[in-house]
Amino acid sequence: MPETVVDAPSLTQKLEASRAAARILATVTSGQKNEALHAIAAAVLRNADRILPANELDLARARDNGMSDGMQDRLRLDFRRLEALEAAVLQIASLTDPIGEAVRGSMLPNGLRITEIRVPFGVVGAIYEARPNVTIDIAALALKSGNAVVLRGGSAAENTNRVLVEILQGALIETGLPAEAIQTIDEFGRDGARDLMQARGYVDVLIPRGSAELINTVVTESKVPVIETGAGIVHVYLDQSADETIAVEIVHNSKVQRPSVCNALETLLVHESAAERLLPPVLDRLRKDGVTIHGDSRTRAIYPAAVPATEDDWSTEYMSLDLAVRVVADLDEALEHIHRYSTHHTESIITNDLAKAERFLAEVDSAVVMVNASTRFTDGGEFGFGAEVGISTQKLHARGPMGLPELTSTKWVVRGSGQVRG
Amino acid sequence: MPETVVDAPSLTQKLEASRAAARILATVTSGQKNEALHAIAAAVLRNADRILPANELDLARARDNGMSDGMQDRLRLDFRRLEALEAAVLQIASLTDPIGEAVRGSMLPNGLRITEIRVPFGVVGAIYEARPNVTIDIAALALKSGNAVVLRGGSAAENTNRVLVEILQGALIETGLPAEAIQTIDEFGRDGARDLMQARGYVDVLIPRGSAELINTVVTESKVPVIETGAGIVHVYLDQSADETIAVEIVHNSKVQRPSVCNALETLLVHESAAERLLPPVLDRLRKDGVTIHGDSRTRAIYPAAVPATEDDWSTEYMSLDLAVRVVADLDEALEHIHRYSTHHTESIITNDLAKAERFLAEVDSAVVMVNASTRFTDGGEFGFGAEVGISTQKLHARGPMGLPELTSTKWVVRGSGQVRG
Repeated sequence: MPETVVDAPSLTQKLEASRAAARILATVTSGQKNEALHAIAAAVLRNADRILPANELDLARARDNGMSDGMQDRLRLDFRRLEALEAAVLQIASLTDPIGEAVRGSMLPNGLRITEIRVPFGVVGAIYEARPNVTIDIAALALKSGNAVVLRGGSAAENTNRVLVEILQGALIETGLPAEAIQTIDEFGRDGARDLMQARGYVDVLIPRGSAELINTVVTESKVPVIETGAGIVHVYLDQSADETIAVEIVHNSKVQRPSVCNALETLLVHESAAERLLPPVLDRLRKDGVTIHGDSRTRAIYPAAVPATEDDWSTEYMSLDLAVRVVADLDEALEHIHRYSTHHTESIITNDLAKAERFLAEVDSAVVMVNASTRFTDGGEFGFGAEVGISTQKLHARGPMGLPELTSTKWVVRGSGQVRG
Repeated sequence: MPETVVDAPSLTQKLEASRAAARILATVTSGQKNEALHAIAAAVLRNADRILPANELDLARARDNGMSDGMQDRLRLDFRRLEALEAAVLQIASLTDPIGEAVRGSMLPNGLRITEIRVPFGVVGAIYEARPNVTIDIAALALKSGNAVVLRGGSAAENTNRVLVEILQGALIETGLPAEAIQTIDEFGRDGARDLMQARGYVDVLIPRGSAELINTVVTESKVPVIETGAGIVHVYLDQSADETIAVEIVHNSKVQRPSVCNALETLLVHESAAERLLPPVLDRLRKDGVTIHGDSRTRAIYPAAVPATEDDWSTEYMSLDLAVRVVADLDEALEHIHRYSTHHTESIITNDLAKAERFLAEVDSAVVMVNASTRFTDGGEFGFGAEVGISTQKLHARGPMGLPELTSTKWVVRGSGQVRG
C-alpha cells in the first residue's frame, strides 16, 4: 500500500505497470528470462545503427555545453563498447539464477522446517547520470534477478537512453515478457526523479549512480530504501617496503587506465622513508601520460614539477588526469588520512611487509581493501559477477561491487504439521 | 565524515564516544566479548532488586496514564522475565562470533585472491517503545557482533532503562571494555530521537522497534539507513481442507498466547466451504479466552456472537484480544485480501492441499510464510538465533527475524602481487 501519493498521474500509472510486471517476473522461469537476455544481447548489436547516431546527438550537445572530457567518455558509446555490453548481457544470461536459492535453513526442535529463500525485490529504481551503458547493465541484472526496473538516466544521455529502452522493451515483447518490466521515466525530467524518491509502496529499492552530489541528494531525500553507490576518493599507500616496479605500475594503472570512473586513484600517500626512492619514478610515469601532480610541501621538495596541493585536494574526486600526493610519517598517519578523507570505496597498500599489510586490511574501513593490486579491480565484472549494478559504499545490504545476489531479497518459508508455541 | 551536524553538543559528544568505542570493539576477540556477555547475564539477575522497583515505578505511572493492558504487558519485567533475559544473553554468548567469517571468496584468473568477510557495522542506533527487554536484547546482540549501540527507549520505560544501561555499562567496565559501547540518549527526549535520525556519519544503521506510527516516522524522517521492523497485521487462512483440530489450536495459539506482540494473529480468513464447519469451534475456543470477534456479514451469519467488522478492522494491528474474521470465496480472494492489507510480516495457511500450500508460499509476499504453523513462531529465539533485534518487514539487508549476521556488514579483501588491469 503506497504511503505517499505520487502527484503526476502518468508517472503513477507507469509505476503501477512496473508493479504488475514485477508480479509476473517473479514467477517466470530462468529459461524465459535467459531467452529475453539473449534477445537483448542480439538487439544491442543489431541496432548499432540506431544507437550510435542517437549517442552522437547526445555527444554533440554535450560538447556544445562544454561537458568535461571525463564526462564525455562516460557518455560515449561506440561499436567496441556495444560489443562489450553484448558480452556482459550474455555473461549475465549464463550465470545461475539467484531466485529460489535456499540461503540457509534448518529443522527446529519442534519439527518445523524453516528455509530462507531468495526472492526478487519487486521494483528496483535507478537514478543515474549520463552513462548509457548503465541502462543496459542494470536492466539485464534486474531482469535476471526477477525485478522490474524503473530507469531515470541523465538528461545528457536522453536520446541514447530512449533508443536503448525501446530496444530492451522490444526484446521483452519478442520473448513474451511484459514490456513494462523495463521502463524509463526520463520524460518526467527532474520531477520524475523527485517523485521516484517518494514512491514508497511502488518502488522497493532505489539505486543512485553518479556524482557525489547526485548520490547525496538521493540518500538524504529518498523515502524509499536506498543503496548508496559510489563516489570514490580512492587512496594508494606506498609503504617503506614497497617494490618500485609494483609501485610504478599499480599507481599508473589505478590513475591512468580510466580516470573518469569511481575506482580510479585520487590520492597517493607515501611513507617518508620511501618518498625519495619512489616518488620520482612513480610520478614521472604519470606525467608522461599527462597527469597533473598536486603535491604537499614535502612532495614538492622531492618533486618540484608538482603543483601545490590545497586542503580541498584531499577531498576531491577529480575523475580526471589529476592526482593528489602526500608524504606521511608512517602507517598510522596514512590510516588517519584515509579515515578522514576516504569515501570508503577502495584503498590499496603497496608493501612487502606482512604485518603492515594485515593492519591496513583490518583497520581501513572501506568496501574493498587491497594489498599490491590496482584499485581498478573494484568492479563487478572483474570480480566475476557478470556486470555490476554499482559499487555500494554503504554498509547496509551490500558493500562493494553488486551483482545478482545484491538485487534480491529473501523470505522465510516455514513448513509445519500443526505446531503451536508453548 | 558527518554530512549533518547534530545540534546538541552533548549528544554529539556521546555519539563521538560511540564511534571511538566501536573502533575498539571491532578489534576485540570473541573471548573478550563473551566474557562481557557472561558478566551482563550475571548482573541482570544479581540486580533484580534494582531493576524491578524501577520497573514498578514505570508501571505505576503507566497505570496512572491509562496505558492499555497490552502495552503494560510489554513494559512489565518480573523475575521470570529477567531469567529469560539472562538465558537469552547466555545463548548469545554461546553463538559463533559472526565477525571475520569468510562469506565467499575466489581466486580471479589473474591470480588475485578476493574474500568477502564479515565486519561490524560500527554504531547501531535503536529507537523503540516501552519494552525494556529490548534494551538487553539489542545491547547483547550488538556487543556480540562488535557494534557499539546507542539506545533511545520509550519515555514510559525510562526508569527501567536507566538502571538497565547502568548495569550493562558496569559489566563492560568490569571486563575491560569501553562503557560507551552501550549508551542511552533517553535524557535528550524527543529531540534526541530526532537528532539520532539525522546523525549520518555517526550512526551506521538505525533500527526502530514499536508501533506502526513510530516506525513510519523513523523510516520517512531518517537520513541514516534504516532497517524497518515490524508492525504486524498478521493473517491466518483456513483452507477448505484444513484439519479442524489444527485450525482450532493454531488460531488460538496465534491470537491468544501473547496478543501484544507483532507476530500475533490479527485477521482470520476462511474459505466459504469451510466456514460452517470451522468457524464455530475455532471462534468458541477464542471467546472462552476473552477474544472479541469482529466478523464480516458472512461470519456473523454463521457466528452471531461476533460484532460487526468495519473496513478499519482489516488494517488494524489490535495487539489485544480482538480478532477480525472474514469469509472469502477462495484462495484467490484470500491472497488478494492479504496483498491489500498485510504489512508483509507473517501469514500462515492451514491446509492439507499441497498445491494450495505451495501457491500460498510462493505468492504471499511476506517476510515469513507458513503452512500449518502458528504465526507466533516468527521470532529470532524460536528460529535459533539466540535472541532477536526485531522482525524486519523491509526487503533490504534483512527480512524476518534478525539475529547476529543481520547486525554485520562485510568488506572485500583483495590480495595481489602487483596485478594491474588490462
